[in-house]
Amino acid sequence: MTRQELYNEIKKKKSFLCIGLDTDLKKIPRHLHKASDPIFEFNKQIIDATHDLCVAYKPNVAFYESLGSVGWEALEKTANYLKNFKDIFTIADAKRGDIGNTSSMYAQAFFGLMDFDAITVAPYMGEDSVTPFLEYEGKWVILLALTSNKGANDFQTSPLSLRRGVVGEAKEMKLFEQVLTTSQNWGNADNMMYVIGATQAQMLSDVRKIVPDHFLLVPGIGAQGGSLQEVARYGTGKQCGLLVNSSRNIIYASDKEDFAAKAREEAMKMQKEMEKLLSNL
Amino acid sequence: MTRQELYNEIKKKKSFLCIGLDTDLKKIPRHLHKASDPIFEFNKQIIDATHDLCVAYKPNVAFYESLGSVGWEALEKTANYLKNFKDIFTIADAKRGDIGNTSSMYAQAFFGLMDFDAITVAPYMGEDSVTPFLEYEGKWVILLALTSNKGANDFQTSPLSLRRGVVGEAKEMKLFEQVLTTSQNWGNADNMMYVIGATQAQMLSDVRKIVPDHFLLVPGIGAQGGSLQEVARYGTGKQCGLLVNSSRNIIYASDKEDFAAKAREEAMKMQKEMEKLLSNL
Repeated sequence: MTRQELYNEIKKKKSFLCIGLDTDLKKIPRHLHKASDPIFEFNKQIIDATHDLCVAYKPNVAFYESLGSVGWEALEKTANYLKNFKDIFTIADAKRGDIGNTSSMYAQAFFGLMDFDAITVAPYMGEDSVTPFLEYEGKWVILLALTSNKGANDFQTSPLSLRRGVVGEAKEMKLFEQVLTTSQNWGNADNMMYVIGATQAQMLSDVRKIVPDHFLLVPGIGAQGGSLQEVARYGTGKQCGLLVNSSRNIIYASDKEDFAAKAREEAMKMQKEMEKLLSNL
Repeated sequence: MTRQELYNEIKKKKSFLCIGLDTDLKKIPRHLHKASDPIFEFNKQIIDATHDLCVAYKPNVAFYESLGSVGWEALEKTANYLKNFKDIFTIADAKRGDIGNTSSMYAQAFFGLMDFDAITVAPYMGEDSVTPFLEYEGKWVILLALTSNKGANDFQTSPLSLRRGVVGEAKEMKLFEQVLTTSQNWGNADNMMYVIGATQAQMLSDVRKIVPDHFLLVPGIGAQGGSLQEVARYGTGKQCGLLVNSSRNIIYASDKEDFAAKAREEAMKMQKEMEKLLSNL
C-alpha cells in the first residue's frame, strides 16, 4: 500500500487506528480453545468485527513465536487472511535487524513469504541492517526511534556530542534524533515510518521538526498510559502522518463469547475520537 | 551451561570455536534436497562431523524464518538434536528485544520451548527489554555491543556527551561503551555476554577495560574479514572469555557430498589455531 493509498483509507474510514494482534493463548476466551487453531480463530473474529474501523493490523510476532512452529502457522494464516482486505495496511511487529545477508532473510520471511506491507526494524546495527528491507518495492520499514517503554531512556535519549561531520552551529542531538536524521539517507517518507511511543508525547514536536512528512507508528496508548489527544496534538504531520496502535484494550475487552463485539465497541470508541481529531486538521 | 562449565569445555577441547548454522536451502548440497527436511539433515550432519572441535553452535534464526513455519520446525529439530551433546553451548542468534511483556514471549520461544542456552538481544530498547530474558535461571543474554558490519559505525560508535549522572572527570564514551557499562547493572558475567565484531579487533582492548570478566561472542572471522590472532590478542579475558564464531567458511566448505568432511577440515584448522592461542594464555 502506498502512502497516498494509506491516507485515502484514513480519510475514508475517519480513523488512523492500528489494532495490535498480541494474541495470547492465556488471554483469549476459553471457548476458542476448542478450535483447530485458536490463535487464528481469535484473530479472524477480531478482524471480521473491526476492519471497517481501523486502517492497519499489527501482529506482534513474539506472541506467535512463543508457541513455536505452530504459532508461526497461525501467523502465516493471519497474514494470508488479511490479504482479503485490500483497504488494510499490515505490519509485522518483529523488531528485526542484523547484518545485510541476514536482514535479507528476515525480509524474505515477512515480505517475500507473508507479504506484509511493513515490518518494524531496530536501528542499532545501522544502514546495512535496514536497507535489505527497503529493497522490496512497495514495502515499508518502520524504524524504532523512541519507544514507549521505560528502557527507552537508557540509550535512546542519550545526548550525543556530535563531533563528527557537523559544520556550523553545534546543536546537541539525542540518539533517537540521530536515528531519525541519519536514516533519512536510507529511505524516504514513501518507504519508511518511525516508531514513536505515545508515552513520550511531548517529544513528538521534536520528532516533527526532523521528520515533518513521515508517518509515525505510535504504540503505548491505553494499557501503557499514553493519551490519544496528546499524540494528535504534538504528532500530527502531513497527510495525518499517524498510525496509533492499540492492542490489549481492544482485543481483550472481554474474555467471554462476546469478545469480538466488545472489541468492536472499543475500536469504535477510538475511531470516534479519531474522527473528531481528524476534523480539526 | 554455567560459565565454569563452558570454560571447562574450552580447556578440554582446546577450542573456543562457535559454529554458525546459517543454513540456506540455496547453498546446501543438492543431494540433501531429497531428504524430508533438508535443513535439519544438513545441520545434523554438520553437527555430527564437528561437535568435538567446537564448544558452541549458533543457529541464525533469520535463515529458518525465511522458510516460514517449515523453517521453524527445522530450527526446533536442530535445537532438540543439540540437546544430545551435553558439552555444547547453544546460542539462538535472534537479535530480539521489545517491551517487557513482548520480550517475555521471545524468552518463552527460545528458552522455554527450545531450551537454548543463550540468545542474542539488541540493546536499543533498554533494560526492561532485556531483563525478561535474564529471569530464566541458567540462561544467558548475549547483548549486541559493537557489531561486525559497516553499519556498526552509524550509531554504535557515536560519541556521547555524558552529561547525565557523571561525576568527576568527564571521559567521553561511545554508545557501545555505554551499552557495556549500563548493562552491567542488569546482569553479570555469569548470565551476560556481549557481541563484539572481529572486524573491529583493535577496539577489543577498549571493550576489555569495561568488561574484563565477561565472555564475548565474536562474529566476523573469515567471510567478513576479521583475524583470529587479532581477536585473541586484544580480546582474551578471564577464563579465555571468547567464543569466536565462524559460519560460511566452515559449513559451506564444500557443496558436494563431502560437505560434512570438508566442514570438519575447516573446523579443525580453526581448532588447531585456537589450541596454539590457548597455550599462550
